[in-house]
Amino acid sequence: MQCAETGLRLNYMRPVYLTGMGKTVFGALAGRTLKDLAVEAIDACVADAKRDRAGIEAVYVGNFDGPSFTNQNHLAPYVAGAAGITGVPATRFEAACASGGSAVFHAFHAVASGIYENVLICGVEKMTSQTTAKVAQILAGAGDAELESAVGATFPAIFAMVARRHMHQYGTRREHLAAVAVKNHYNASLNPQAHLKKVITLEQALAGKVVAEPFTIFDCSLVSDGAAAIWISASESPIRVAACAQASGPVALAGKREITTLEATRLAAAKAYAQAGIGASDVDLAEVHDCFTIAELIAMEDLGFVAAGQSGPWVAGGATGIGGQLPVNTSGGLKAKGHPIGATGVAQICDLATQMRGQAGERQVARHRTGLAQNLGGSGATSVVTILRKD
Amino acid sequence: MQCAETGLRLNYMRPVYLTGMGKTVFGALAGRTLKDLAVEAIDACVADAKRDRAGIEAVYVGNFDGPSFTNQNHLAPYVAGAAGITGVPATRFEAACASGGSAVFHAFHAVASGIYENVLICGVEKMTSQTTAKVAQILAGAGDAELESAVGATFPAIFAMVARRHMHQYGTRREHLAAVAVKNHYNASLNPQAHLKKVITLEQALAGKVVAEPFTIFDCSLVSDGAAAIWISASESPIRVAACAQASGPVALAGKREITTLEATRLAAAKAYAQAGIGASDVDLAEVHDCFTIAELIAMEDLGFVAAGQSGPWVAGGATGIGGQLPVNTSGGLKAKGHPIGATGVAQICDLATQMRGQAGERQVARHRTGLAQNLGGSGATSVVTILRKD
Repeated sequence: MQCAETGLRLNYMRPVYLTGMGKTVFGALAGRTLKDLAVEAIDACVADAKRDRAGIEAVYVGNFDGPSFTNQNHLAPYVAGAAGITGVPATRFEAACASGGSAVFHAFHAVASGIYENVLICGVEKMTSQTTAKVAQILAGAGDAELESAVGATFPAIFAMVARRHMHQYGTRREHLAAVAVKNHYNASLNPQAHLKKVITLEQALAGKVVAEPFTIFDCSLVSDGAAAIWISASESPIRVAACAQASGPVALAGKREITTLEATRLAAAKAYAQAGIGASDVDLAEVHDCFTIAELIAMEDLGFVAAGQSGPWVAGGATGIGGQLPVNTSGGLKAKGHPIGATGVAQICDLATQMRGQAGERQVARHRTGLAQNLGGSGATSVVTILRKD
Repeated sequence: MQCAETGLRLNYMRPVYLTGMGKTVFGALAGRTLKDLAVEAIDACVADAKRDRAGIEAVYVGNFDGPSFTNQNHLAPYVAGAAGITGVPATRFEAACASGGSAVFHAFHAVASGIYENVLICGVEKMTSQTTAKVAQILAGAGDAELESAVGATFPAIFAMVARRHMHQYGTRREHLAAVAVKNHYNASLNPQAHLKKVITLEQALAGKVVAEPFTIFDCSLVSDGAAAIWISASESPIRVAACAQASGPVALAGKREITTLEATRLAAAKAYAQAGIGASDVDLAEVHDCFTIAELIAMEDLGFVAAGQSGPWVAGGATGIGGQLPVNTSGGLKAKGHPIGATGVAQICDLATQMRGQAGERQVARHRTGLAQNLGGSGATSVVTILRKD
């Protein structure tokens, strides 16, 4: 179906812009609640947008498992109401660790297709009030309860199998995985809002406490509290949300034909590149879902930045550093910036936009016309790819 | 923004139709899992649609708290994958007891605005594998954890306060509340898919075990397992989804100016009536959210069927019976059909459509051109109103 006036298909009828953004620091924030983190991010976002929050027509909340972490459910009207936004539709989106990205995906389409002019997206998670054992149990719910969590296959174990297979198939080495950790720790050390600001060496990364072979503690992302919010609208502003695509795949690793590539990411990337009218080589910087170091390597391949199997040497050679060919996770990534689950997919957009506005301080990259964010749920059952552009 | 060709605003650009529907029985279904209930509903829906599931472009899953009830999170790709639908965006929507309605709301707008031609919505909940105490705790999460659940204000207590206030303000009597229960129990006795098929008398309803004064056990809806699915599309078919609106209000009862009316329902109803181009008097039958008997009475007022305070005598006088002026909850409602939370808002659409197709058997109503569904979350923090029409 086409519009006679513009000749465009009804979908993606009009451009969508980033109007404002706000984030809390990420960390183990004792004394902070899910509600006050979300309100801080929303207030910062509204202030950044320089608009009246009364203009917000719908609220999209990305949250993985607030009910289990904090006993609070029905989080969208809960958070929106606390931020002074009432009456309008307020909905929580859950897609495991891609909950934030999924909220962005649905909000983007609602504005692109003309349903709303102005919407607010808030991603939030409060994790650190639970014990480590309880956190592990909650996180395991994002895998397949029957096939994985019931038999003890937690996410470090699942991604360790992926890493082992990538090593076997392509000759990827532990040093390649560790290079991701070293880079992201360094980047986070320059990010005032990051959870961990501890620079590490390759030797330290390799010598870390083993979590699930071949992973040490340095291969695993953090358990964090935090929130991020963005305001997107149909009103022109310098940064355009050029594309946002979500795709799905099997929840259980056992359901995948190959485990060294994530079909959901490849599908979402192909759709997002087509929507934006660009290719992988046009991307100037990326924030990707490094829940484990292997996930960042695989993302490089699935997003088309390097050929399958080539990511290890490429990353270890410095291509994705702040001064490299394609800076990746200049924020520090989930690895060191932190990973308050529901917030992650929204925070990635804030992190890209900070670079694209030239406000990244010591982490500032040189080329920043086109930024790409990739947000993953589980071991690839959901993947969301978003592209920001300055025209 | 308008389309030059049609003069319509971009939103609600084109009609949306009900293409297919399917439901499981509702009940305490020992041995059934969340996954197999969802798959059964989806399979029934696809069969009813007489279409190939490969044509489904996105999956919308309404689920309140599968993670707490079943330890399984990331439910949308989990359920969609099990039903043989992979690759496409699959997202879980949570809005407490309005999770199903909220999934319908977002799916409706996606088709109406031209993003997709065909989408599937599945509502599902598996509740009865938990103890009663655990169920009560999980349900309490839909209220305000700080202001309500922490001090023991569970939902029976919250709605009992609403009932007390309605009685005080308008002279509503326990017999009026009980009349809702008697009607809905009778209706469910004629519904082969209902959870409870036990006809009760007014005397029995009034003499039931007290749960929270003035409520007896007969004023409270059921804890059930079940699933429902609908396929909506842009392809013409006899039943049109003429409107779907979602609105929000305070999560805590303490945040409301008045507690005998739910602002979210009034907002959603006003918007839905305007979208559909009809008024309350055009509605031929309704399925409303009778989580407690008082909720059905208040819904009559908030949806504009009777003036504020008049619902008690009106319902007790038989106006909402199967042969009455406006049949309400001919399915048996949450009260007796059952209330598998995430399924409820989707099942309401199936129940209306069953009547509108003339397939309701002994429950069949005479006039069925226009049906309205109202799905409530918490004590009114979310409300979704959907209108079906035959043109």
